[in-house]
Amino acid sequence: MRNLKVMAAYRGTAYHGFQRQSNAVTVQEVLEKALSKVLNEPITITGCSRTDTGVHANQFCFNVKTSSKINCLGFCRGVNGELPDDVSVLSCEDVPLDFHARFDCKGKEYVYKMHCSESKNPFAADLMLHYRRKFDVEAARKAAQYFVGTHDFSSFCADCTNVSTTVRTIYSFKIEKSGDSVIMLVKGNGFLYNMIRIMVGTLIDVSEKRLAPDDLNRVFYSEEEMLGETAEQS
Amino acid sequence: MRNLKVMAAYRGTAYHGFQRQSNAVTVQEVLEKALSKVLNEPITITGCSRTDTGVHANQFCFNVKTSSKINCLGFCRGVNGELPDDVSVLSCEDVPLDFHARFDCKGKEYVYKMHCSESKNPFAADLMLHYRRKFDVEAARKAAQYFVGTHDFSSFCADCTNVSTTVRTIYSFKIEKSGDSVIMLVKGNGFLYNMIRIMVGTLIDVSEKRLAPDDLNRVFYSEEEMLGETAEQS
Repeated sequence: MRNLKVMAAYRGTAYHGFQRQSNAVTVQEVLEKALSKVLNEPITITGCSRTDTGVHANQFCFNVKTSSKINCLGFCRGVNGELPDDVSVLSCEDVPLDFHARFDCKGKEYVYKMHCSESKNPFAADLMLHYRRKFDVEAARKAAQYFVGTHDFSSFCADCTNVSTTVRTIYSFKIEKSGDSVIMLVKGNGFLYNMIRIMVGTLIDVSEKRLAPDDLNRVFYSEEEMLGETAEQS
Repeated sequence: MRNLKVMAAYRGTAYHGFQRQSNAVTVQEVLEKALSKVLNEPITITGCSRTDTGVHANQFCFNVKTSSKINCLGFCRGVNGELPDDVSVLSCEDVPLDFHARFDCKGKEYVYKMHCSESKNPFAADLMLHYRRKFDVEAARKAAQYFVGTHDFSSFCADCTNVSTTVRTIYSFKIEKSGDSVIMLVKGNGFLYNMIRIMVGTLIDVSEKRLAPDDLNRVFYSEEEMLGETAEQS
């Protein structure tokens, strides 16, 4: 038995996220179908993470256990030959049998891109948010620093019913501007369902002055504060 | 009567180039249809250039004469509202009546992008050439310098029957590498049909050692040399 660590990239537009679902086409399903053909055995892969519907990946790690003796270059060529144009494997290497793409993941970096201009960008269709106003990068940068650290992100989650904890650590939150583009680079140990989109939406509220940057200081309560508040209200 | 100078961008994938044709959909036709609606009169635009089938544009200048009194911001909003997702107007300004997008054009810059990797890039589909081998940037840079200057580019033209001269001036030819991407930036006073693609193909020949960089020295003959050679052969 071997364990292969594989890096993949995909354009998520046509998929209902990464994770296999019974009633919708997902990236995992497409990858497993291609791998099963090339490795000539039924395949289940372990992804480093789930991604939401429509989210793309530049560097997505998964691992797969196989009894196939195929070499890594042959694996990549064969799998890419079976994959549609919007999914690609980038590299493959043998790793120890106990390597687990999700449990051994040290962190994740999300990139959120905005095209900030009155006119639409014909090249950004499903790759960037089209934001028709001027984005206040300085205010957003100031506000975004409140996201950095370990917090309970339950107010930044669209549906937290399936997670054991809503505490996550954001290592860094950078905002870069280049021409009409604003690029947000967010590193963390994990992200909740829609968490990035809700954080970006909050920064848009800051840019549009519905929130002041320092208002984000009050978004995260410590557990004691929350208990205290509940007590006061009861 | 007013004369408007308009900057546009388009994804050329779905179009048979810029210039209006009777039997195929072109960017000019789509722009003229949108402008006619917004300006409420039949419109013919003058493009700075023609682009080949499938070629995209980041900054394409055209001018249009109109009797409409619409302001420039309203013009952009209105036209963008009528245009499909793959064509966009970026800006608009009033210019003197004698401004002509083609005759007053001072130069053009083409950008040719290659994705150089065994694996395909899911985000590059119709935007970059997928080149599966290592591209020899140094050799290509050396060779490309022979393109710079004023030459008869008739051997770099797919069909030269409709042009009065095949002499063109290349101001600069830069090749940049970033990760798996190779970007060629070519500035010139004009380009013949398929000229960029044929120049890139020649540089691929250099990268694959079918041509040495210095062989490009011999691609351009002066008029005297050509006459001399013909005389020797006869």
